Amino acid sequence: MKSEVITVGSEIMSGHTLDTNFRFIARKLSSIGAEVVWHTSVGDDHETVADVLRVALRRAEIVVMTGGLGPTPDDVTRKVVSTVLGRNLLLNDSVLEAIRERYRMRGTQMPGINERQALFPKGAEVIENKVGAAPGFLIKEGEKLLFALPGVPLEAEVMLEQHVLPRLTQSGTPRGREQVVLRTVGLPESIMAERIASMREQLEGVSISYLPHDYGVDLCLTFKKGEPTQLALNERVARQRLLPILGKHFYGEGDKTLEEVVGELLVSKRRKLAVAESVTGGMVSQLITSVPGASRYFMLGVTAYSDETKCKVLGVSDELIREKGAVSEQVAIEMARGVRKKGAADIGVSSTGIAGPGGGRAEKPVGLVYIAVATQRKASAEELRLVGNRALITRRASAAALEMVRRSLL
Amino acid sequence: MKSEVITVGSEIMSGHTLDTNFRFIARKLSSIGAEVVWHTSVGDDHETVADVLRVALRRAEIVVMTGGLGPTPDDVTRKVVSTVLGRNLLLNDSVLEAIRERYRMRGTQMPGINERQALFPKGAEVIENKVGAAPGFLIKEGEKLLFALPGVPLEAEVMLEQHVLPRLTQSGTPRGREQVVLRTVGLPESIMAERIASMREQLEGVSISYLPHDYGVDLCLTFKKGEPTQLALNERVARQRLLPILGKHFYGEGDKTLEEVVGELLVSKRRKLAVAESVTGGMVSQLITSVPGASRYFMLGVTAYSDETKCKVLGVSDELIREKGAVSEQVAIEMARGVRKKGAADIGVSSTGIAGPGGGRAEKPVGLVYIAVATQRKASAEELRLVGNRALITRRASAAALEMVRRSLL
Repeated sequence: MKSEVITVGSEIMSGHTLDTNFRFIARKLSSIGAEVVWHTSVGDDHETVADVLRVALRRAEIVVMTGGLGPTPDDVTRKVVSTVLGRNLLLNDSVLEAIRERYRMRGTQMPGINERQALFPKGAEVIENKVGAAPGFLIKEGEKLLFALPGVPLEAEVMLEQHVLPRLTQSGTPRGREQVVLRTVGLPESIMAERIASMREQLEGVSISYLPHDYGVDLCLTFKKGEPTQLALNERVARQRLLPILGKHFYGEGDKTLEEVVGELLVSKRRKLAVAESVTGGMVSQLITSVPGASRYFMLGVTAYSDETKCKVLGVSDELIREKGAVSEQVAIEMARGVRKKGAADIGVSSTGIAGPGGGRAEKPVGLVYIAVATQRKASAEELRLVGNRALITRRASAAALEMVRRSLL
Repeated sequence: MKSEVITVGSEIMSGHTLDTNFRFIARKLSSIGAEVVWHTSVGDDHETVADVLRVALRRAEIVVMTGGLGPTPDDVTRKVVSTVLGRNLLLNDSVLEAIRERYRMRGTQMPGINERQALFPKGAEVIENKVGAAPGFLIKEGEKLLFALPGVPLEAEVMLEQHVLPRLTQSGTPRGREQVVLRTVGLPESIMAERIASMREQLEGVSISYLPHDYGVDLCLTFKKGEPTQLALNERVARQRLLPILGKHFYGEGDKTLEEVVGELLVSKRRKLAVAESVTGGMVSQLITSVPGASRYFMLGVTAYSDETKCKVLGVSDELIREKGAVSEQVAIEMARGVRKKGAADIGVSSTGIAGPGGGRAEKPVGLVYIAVATQRKASAEELRLVGNRALITRRASAAALEMVRRSLL
């Protein structure tokens, strides 16, 4: 069933508020097999909302609106739906009484403007809001379903899960397709795509899309509708064919992050980690500790920007820095060794490089980064030449550091 | 000028990826006075993208597309624009050579499929991508402007700032309204709103909105259109009235970040900073070093998760930890003193606390955080009780640490 999501709110259109409702709704609708084809956002303007709602009702079978259900005059959703569908707004007495009761419980009287929230287009089913003031509603217009939910994310989420999804599955929305996401790091999108293209005919019933992000590429497999057994077979075949192509670059599925994978490996192998950062400025430590329970394996992080600190805190020899420069393979290795020792860890990982925008020279340009990993037995470094601005270089270098730790644990 | 933003990507429609491009683009377009009226997202499907592009070109004067410019077959933007506008795709030799050169620099050969990225609809101006592979383009279709940018957020951001905005301001986009954003930290939205409401009649010709974010509230002043002199007067009066209300909580205007303000203060006061982190896990160091030139004032960051590291690396006494617990005012102060000394800095700042989800107890619940600042002469700590999940608590504690450094420098 083709679906459209319309988020209404001037705060979204000005860029002040990041719209997180859509992502949540899209995930949930996809999970029950509804195909989300369009997402439209507009401000709190009657005419504009009315126009996009008309378009949505023409092309989609399910329309989910969020926002515009509050008590103030700039909340236009009720009025727009009434206009577009030609259904008068009627006062729902029991909803009005429930809103009054909410205020009574807090020891105050309901302000007059809240009465508006008990108005619904004729024929609408009220969707109760257990966590906030604004109820939503559902209208069946022929074969089409229109849901209106509040814009407050938590309220919209609860109402979607408790009312919208059960309603859609009960009305027999077919499970359309299954998706699997394979996450990779270190393999350029185009090389991956060429390898996969060369064996395309061996992959039946699956469409593949490439989702590059800041530091890696996710491979999204969408399996076409069919018998569950056929679907399971197609998925098994696709994995068997694709995983060898991805090789060591494959690190996890779905939403799993590189730092979570590294954390799981450290726990299962009973290893402890210490991090020495120059170019990544604390980001590697921050990613590692963003995973709950990181205290089980994270011993120490040192951000050593200056040469002096690299020597004093991490024990890098100042002679080495004079000879090779702070941005060098050898200094990276000494940093990894130093922090491993200092943190009494099994593995030390380090970064040194030039994040820019300043500080680059011809022989050591912006984007030159060395990552090193040291264990008790050995140490090695990798040279990277990263592109991007300061934020991107930092992010990519941090991912490379995590990835080097991951490989050392395989 | 009415604008529409179209974000293309199946990863957005499935809910796999949160669309952050729109927010950034909307902010930037609004900042130069372009009105963002519609935002549409669709997957990588030729027909669907073509349909929404046709609609956009009918109703908007400026259309900004992101996504669909990669080298793989599911990147449809070039093809769609070519179809919708009836402009053939032509190979741009110098772009092709630049892409080849990128690969040569990395020591590999360009895969054949990347040639696609040098194709542009006839009459398109190429928009250079300095931080990634996919160039964008601009097409003038009558009075309308169509920009196509890549979907990778940082690439889209850089290209928007360096090419799209200058192009729009030079083409004489009218500045519609004036906005000023005053950024604050540490003052609850409701208290700020009450104080401002009490003097509302002294603020003429300005509407005020409150934009709470992860760790503070931005106050957005929108001045009604009018004579430049009247506008300037209104703005001056609004500042005179509002800044005393905001007091020390006001830290900057527009997009200025707390870490930039702290950096500027450290430079102007010639002070150097060292950071000891437990609950913030490296985020304070990472924020400080995200500002170009941070090496002038950032000496050392230590992330010490374990009690052992707090003692060994930062010189906190293990007796103190046994007596007061690692999450305590006294340990925070010792960490700040220790890292200040170790880093040979003027100011040491520290964090200790419980980010959750586990580890909370009745007397020390999740969200309890201590931040301390130490200088040569004195040291002090603040207790915070933060709400939110692990990521939010970490973010808020990091902002509180930066804020405490800022105040110590005033």
